[in-house]
Amino acid sequence: MADSRARRLTALIDGLTAAHVDGLLITSLPNIRYLTGFSGSSALLFVSTRDLVLITDFRYQTQITEEVGDFARISIEPQSLWAGLWQQLAPFTYLEVVGFESGHILHRDFQRLLEAGARWQWRPTVDLVETLRERKDAGELALIQAANGIATQALERTIPQVRVGMSELEVAGVLEKSLRDAGSEGFPFASIVASGPRSALPHAHSSARQIEDGDFLLLDFGAETKGYCSDVTRTFVVGHAAPEQREVYEVVRVANENAAHGVRAGMTGRDADAIARDYIEQRGYGDLFGHSLGHGLGLEVHEAPRLARTAEGTLAEGAVVTIEPGIYRPGWGGVRIEDDVFLGPDGPTILTSFPRELIELG
Amino acid sequence: MADSRARRLTALIDGLTAAHVDGLLITSLPNIRYLTGFSGSSALLFVSTRDLVLITDFRYQTQITEEVGDFARISIEPQSLWAGLWQQLAPFTYLEVVGFESGHILHRDFQRLLEAGARWQWRPTVDLVETLRERKDAGELALIQAANGIATQALERTIPQVRVGMSELEVAGVLEKSLRDAGSEGFPFASIVASGPRSALPHAHSSARQIEDGDFLLLDFGAETKGYCSDVTRTFVVGHAAPEQREVYEVVRVANENAAHGVRAGMTGRDADAIARDYIEQRGYGDLFGHSLGHGLGLEVHEAPRLARTAEGTLAEGAVVTIEPGIYRPGWGGVRIEDDVFLGPDGPTILTSFPRELIELG
Repeated sequence: MADSRARRLTALIDGLTAAHVDGLLITSLPNIRYLTGFSGSSALLFVSTRDLVLITDFRYQTQITEEVGDFARISIEPQSLWAGLWQQLAPFTYLEVVGFESGHILHRDFQRLLEAGARWQWRPTVDLVETLRERKDAGELALIQAANGIATQALERTIPQVRVGMSELEVAGVLEKSLRDAGSEGFPFASIVASGPRSALPHAHSSARQIEDGDFLLLDFGAETKGYCSDVTRTFVVGHAAPEQREVYEVVRVANENAAHGVRAGMTGRDADAIARDYIEQRGYGDLFGHSLGHGLGLEVHEAPRLARTAEGTLAEGAVVTIEPGIYRPGWGGVRIEDDVFLGPDGPTILTSFPRELIELG
Repeated sequence: MADSRARRLTALIDGLTAAHVDGLLITSLPNIRYLTGFSGSSALLFVSTRDLVLITDFRYQTQITEEVGDFARISIEPQSLWAGLWQQLAPFTYLEVVGFESGHILHRDFQRLLEAGARWQWRPTVDLVETLRERKDAGELALIQAANGIATQALERTIPQVRVGMSELEVAGVLEKSLRDAGSEGFPFASIVASGPRSALPHAHSSARQIEDGDFLLLDFGAETKGYCSDVTRTFVVGHAAPEQREVYEVVRVANENAAHGVRAGMTGRDADAIARDYIEQRGYGDLFGHSLGHGLGLEVHEAPRLARTAEGTLAEGAVVTIEPGIYRPGWGGVRIEDDVFLGPDGPTILTSFPRELIELG
């Protein structure tokens, strides 16, 4: 931990030099956790070649000492983190140009920089920490793998309990309890349990709808361990699958398989997306795959890189990405199969071990 | 629903006139939900005396029609909501000065206003919609009451299942499943299950710690129904309560009771806070009540008003606020008792019906 933090900090400081700033104000909480280990919900971090200052409030006094130790100078503010920041920066005579995270600061707080922080020159920066986070180290990979193990275990415990007549909310309850029992520290996003025609809504939440015989049942959920996430989707049929359900399922399954085995570091996000999309189009379902193939994941469930038609950037070696093709026919139903995949030097490793063949429940 | 939306819109338009803007760009999703009924995770809303335009992406095509109907002009954007916004605003020849929500727009998106939106003059606004949201109407109050009913029901189902040796995560699983079974559409925040010495951490998350005989067990959680939240805390003793536990519990219970019965619309947030704080100080525990007394709740679990030593504003009639005093002794444990209270014209109504007397579990 201490080692990986020092390595990350060194890499970030190289980025500061390239961005021509004397220091960087970090307001993104996942970025702060990545750099220091602090997992609280209220913090500001200042980084320069000479100083590393982490500011939080009194609620986190005990926790911050445990998590950060003496890696950063810690300041506990009784009232405003911002007042604390100005105080902490005042003695740094070397400081003229300070970067800030344009994608992680509200206009209201940006105004503070221009007013209370007017003695410094503020320069917007983009993705300095996110670029580092894209390449997972061995410790991070192990945690994402563990979060995948929890997700698989929870799904194995859940599916024998699904019955016709249960509501989607009840299934969500069984799934979430199974995630907790398997050790998940949280839910990285609101679980989606979508049945029957509702499985055709790519962003359905769970509802009071009762499951009927012959329904598709789509579960999209994740586990969290030490801040790292998994993100998994499986689609089942409750009862016997009709031929058309089997056909659509099989197209999505092959698209998932092709993409999960074909994705490589160095490829553009667009080319990765095309592996699944081209196959689904060939099979005549192109119009029904309306979203992109996937996204990076780690401390956040959506982070760099993107796997999409519009993603021209190349996928970094060490990234973990989701592969989640789907086919959605409005009013009828939808299928999505989603795995988490590590892009290693020797090709992809699929981190999600739950089977991908069609399972009929009940 | 249609009626309350029209009423809210009229009130907001009065606010626009007072703020000297010709229109307002709304980027806060809860504010958009409040004004239009749309609950998706991606939207921009433009409001003026003449136009109401709601922009989202293709994923929400079906949902937005169901939720919004013809109350607003709906625009579905294939790529960027922002590109859609410029297109929608272009024909509005009356538009010169446009307000934006300073507390709900990232610097990155503010830059878009100055660049792609340079033909308009942009003016920051603060809390125009939040001020309206502070006063709940009868429909909103009924939903918060329903979310409190779900929370109470879930807690009643959970506590008979708590045993020495269960982990906090397992208790969280039972609680969250009970919330789902009682119909909660989501979890407004990460449930806190904190046992023994961990109950002294006001922002503990649930951990793998196993519950021991004689522990305090603190549960802080909420339910959600049609977007509206509840936020409830109860603290139990597992096994027999020691005299010191009873004493601390009783101080918190009386502080909660005094504040829940004493809080009034028209009071400052500071005076409300003082009802509980003064009592806890008199009893000699003032140093151990480190946070503020409460906060508003509704579509968000933290919204206006604040009940705190630094809150000089007065509490609006119609607000729903939490009353959550606590005493935390590091290394030993803590007690917090939290209810949701409606500030009506004739005084406070406590919306949380779960008992407040000390309960020994198991």
